[in-house]
Amino acid sequence: MGSSHLLKIRQESKIALPKIFDDITNVCFSSFLDKDYQTKEEIKKEFPLSYSDVFLEAKGSNGKHHPPLKVGVVLSGGQASGGHNVIIGIFDAIKKLNKDSSLIGFLNGPQGIFNHKYKELTEDHLHLYRNTGGFDLIGSGRDKIEKEEQLLSSLKIALDLNLDGIVIIGGDDSNTNAAILAEYFKSNKCHTKVVGVPKTIDGDLQNKYVDISFGFDTASKTYSELIGNIARDALSAKKYTHFIKLMGRTASHLALECALQVHPNLTFIGEEVALKKQSLKDLSKEITDLVIERYEKGKNFGIILLPEGLIEQMVDMNELIAALNHLLGTIDPGSFDQKQLIEHVTQHLNKSESETFKCLPPEIQKQLLLDRDPHGNVQVALIETEKLFIHLVQKNLREVSFKGKFSPIAHFFGYEGRAGFPTLFDATYCYSLGYAAAALIKEGMSSYMAAISGLSSNYESWKCYGIPLTSLMRFEIRKGKKKAVIEKALVNLKGKSFLTFSKLRESWREGDDYTFTGPIQFFSEIPDIQDVPKILNK
Amino acid sequence: MGSSHLLKIRQESKIALPKIFDDITNVCFSSFLDKDYQTKEEIKKEFPLSYSDVFLEAKGSNGKHHPPLKVGVVLSGGQASGGHNVIIGIFDAIKKLNKDSSLIGFLNGPQGIFNHKYKELTEDHLHLYRNTGGFDLIGSGRDKIEKEEQLLSSLKIALDLNLDGIVIIGGDDSNTNAAILAEYFKSNKCHTKVVGVPKTIDGDLQNKYVDISFGFDTASKTYSELIGNIARDALSAKKYTHFIKLMGRTASHLALECALQVHPNLTFIGEEVALKKQSLKDLSKEITDLVIERYEKGKNFGIILLPEGLIEQMVDMNELIAALNHLLGTIDPGSFDQKQLIEHVTQHLNKSESETFKCLPPEIQKQLLLDRDPHGNVQVALIETEKLFIHLVQKNLREVSFKGKFSPIAHFFGYEGRAGFPTLFDATYCYSLGYAAAALIKEGMSSYMAAISGLSSNYESWKCYGIPLTSLMRFEIRKGKKKAVIEKALVNLKGKSFLTFSKLRESWREGDDYTFTGPIQFFSEIPDIQDVPKILNK
Repeated sequence: MGSSHLLKIRQESKIALPKIFDDITNVCFSSFLDKDYQTKEEIKKEFPLSYSDVFLEAKGSNGKHHPPLKVGVVLSGGQASGGHNVIIGIFDAIKKLNKDSSLIGFLNGPQGIFNHKYKELTEDHLHLYRNTGGFDLIGSGRDKIEKEEQLLSSLKIALDLNLDGIVIIGGDDSNTNAAILAEYFKSNKCHTKVVGVPKTIDGDLQNKYVDISFGFDTASKTYSELIGNIARDALSAKKYTHFIKLMGRTASHLALECALQVHPNLTFIGEEVALKKQSLKDLSKEITDLVIERYEKGKNFGIILLPEGLIEQMVDMNELIAALNHLLGTIDPGSFDQKQLIEHVTQHLNKSESETFKCLPPEIQKQLLLDRDPHGNVQVALIETEKLFIHLVQKNLREVSFKGKFSPIAHFFGYEGRAGFPTLFDATYCYSLGYAAAALIKEGMSSYMAAISGLSSNYESWKCYGIPLTSLMRFEIRKGKKKAVIEKALVNLKGKSFLTFSKLRESWREGDDYTFTGPIQFFSEIPDIQDVPKILNK
Repeated sequence: MGSSHLLKIRQESKIALPKIFDDITNVCFSSFLDKDYQTKEEIKKEFPLSYSDVFLEAKGSNGKHHPPLKVGVVLSGGQASGGHNVIIGIFDAIKKLNKDSSLIGFLNGPQGIFNHKYKELTEDHLHLYRNTGGFDLIGSGRDKIEKEEQLLSSLKIALDLNLDGIVIIGGDDSNTNAAILAEYFKSNKCHTKVVGVPKTIDGDLQNKYVDISFGFDTASKTYSELIGNIARDALSAKKYTHFIKLMGRTASHLALECALQVHPNLTFIGEEVALKKQSLKDLSKEITDLVIERYEKGKNFGIILLPEGLIEQMVDMNELIAALNHLLGTIDPGSFDQKQLIEHVTQHLNKSESETFKCLPPEIQKQLLLDRDPHGNVQVALIETEKLFIHLVQKNLREVSFKGKFSPIAHFFGYEGRAGFPTLFDATYCYSLGYAAAALIKEGMSSYMAAISGLSSNYESWKCYGIPLTSLMRFEIRKGKKKAVIEKALVNLKGKSFLTFSKLRESWREGDDYTFTGPIQFFSEIPDIQDVPKILNK
């Protein structure tokens, strides 16, 4: 890794901590029942040993000498800025408890656990990663610990290394996996505790105690910077309409946050589109109308945000994708050339599906047919929604003999925002999450998610909770089977953030009220720790 | 325009000035002859009245009361961060000379001059634009003042408004246009002086006195941030090969700067490709070899930079594009459908051109045939070079039965970097350029480019020059005609920057020595004014 000015300064910057962690030896938890929470009997049957109705809140007690802890940590899934600070937080906390504590990093995701690939993490090595983005300290991966031999092999390494705990840093699926591992360890009388930490730029891991998952703030501020730059360019050049797709999987939290930050002319929220059963035709008409309206006001430019999940949330595309997944699952696509594949598909789709398919440009048809995941499913993240809409709007404009100019430009922002230097907020929040995970393990808690709450208030007064992982679970149908999983948090269409957005959006269509947030800042003139995502305050 | 934290702070931040401008009333110029410069007789014939061999350097003299100046300013061409500070620099300088001075902004580019669209710029309005990106204060445009009626109409407004000077902020073509206007004004005995300011993110307006054009620093730092973020993501996920195309027109300065900043695994420099007469096949083989080499070292990821100009600099693509421009110029493409167009084209290309055309994926063939500018030429900037190489590398890998995984991701960065908040360097440099332009007009100089030199040294000691625009010109063939134009500065393959790059690049192929520069900072811990582009120091 090369060194930059900013890297050196950030590596050497101390990270702030909430008061609750002033003396980690002093932290214990008080149990409480959440009066809004009702026991989930079915989940309890699935996790008989690790199920809990008991929530935990950290408090001070009389500090006492603590024996050394040996903890393992793993990064699971896509990158999110601040992951290194979570690990450093765990390290600093267990070292404060006892200088003989040690931290084992499992390499390249959960497979590092069951394949027994790991290394001990030491101060010498860690200090280069303080306040940095990326997961390159130990790598990450998307594997799950599911099969019996994987669980058994994970048990073996936990026992061989005599681990007091394993911290799984990941999203909803990875935390579901943490619950499975915790139950398995308990059922095998293994003393190793399993604790989850809520990570994902998508922001879809939220609940009463988790205001936001880490990485969301850095990602949304990075995208907002870029969208703002492009908006200012559009406002200056006055001739381009920018179609910007944003990462975020099914949930539109990132698009909503960026809309609240930058005020683009039009932003679709996938959850609303699904609720209203809007189609590809409806949305492309809405964009076309916007282009025409703006042209009539002398504005041949605009900014349109498209969340990644949108493609699956439009009613007709949703049907088409389901039909294609079914159809393509029954054949070996390798035995067809592209033309034959298109023929096969159009013959077997029903009338409305076939019409939807035919209105797509050839590149998108190809993406739907050829770019499939190992299970044969369409990879919706790879579909260029931004180009699809450009194609349809061009067609619509031709049909109404549009007299103005329409110069569309397509963008996709995703990878740019997953591994940048964490904002002061994410850096601080993540370090606290590391402390919270360490505190839970110290107190012998398993199948809990570490949570830091009250993020909109001053960081000194942030609170620390332990949430039973099972309390976050419900049954869903996955690959045809009923499975207990942690619920994905989608945009709440009755929530304050969405209502604020829906109240303001009409004025953004023509107002060009773009706000330029600029690059993320780390220094004193801007009190960035408290510069939290807008969706937190609304 | 909405307001952000950073916007407010930057609007209120004072801009530093070199010592030479401590008292603008005190600035005059000493003339000198550049001993390296030889009189250009042919250019002198073209610009008999405004041609000059005399260079100017600003110096102090006895300050004296100055009558008010009335100056017009126009932004010409694509956005570059800092343009607003140039305008504010002119305004502050002429107001210091005499509080009754005034500044007229011509709207939406040079057509604002000949169409007489303008507004007076006042302190009330300007302060919102201090230290901001974009050209939205007065807009910009790509028109030229060329035709007799346009020149005449420009003369009329200069006389009607009784302008002491017009400042044209633009790139090579816009400064060429400034020279034409200056000559025209002189030949019509008009007292209005014309001064150019070197603007362009592409960095292709450089000479002995202009170290770099403004906007280059902000653009290259914005792209470097993003490339670094993506590199850190690649290094963490260990499974993607990112193909990143960068704006910059023909010149590869931006790609070279970003390569020196971030150390990607492979960067093509268009000027080198042209010199070596490398083909599409050569370069796609070079990338394929890199993918295989890295796979053999267990590295299924990488970062590849492709300058925008590359597409035209590969010998076979250059021939093909020239042939297509010729062919498509002779027919009405509207009368052919896409299939007929492809047939027509393949029938009329020669054998090697036809082979090149056939190896392109359908999307690129379509871009070459359909996306043409008003003169019928292929719009090379719109060709997705990044996708073209992905297609060819996939093909190459299939042919050698590559066993590894190759997951390519395409990016294009351009608009993101043209209108962001200017770096402290660009903010300061631009404000000084505004002072320099005002000083030249005050001293009655016309057909000069304002230049600030010695940018690598402390800003306090920066020097101010006036360069005869005609001294930068040479004859080129444009649209079949010999025309006097300002020479575009391409990457010097014998210069220190390129030599540094070519010495290091071998180690970057496999070393993953990525440097993460992070977001642009504006505050005190990083002395950013002196954080100049790397290509300046090399």
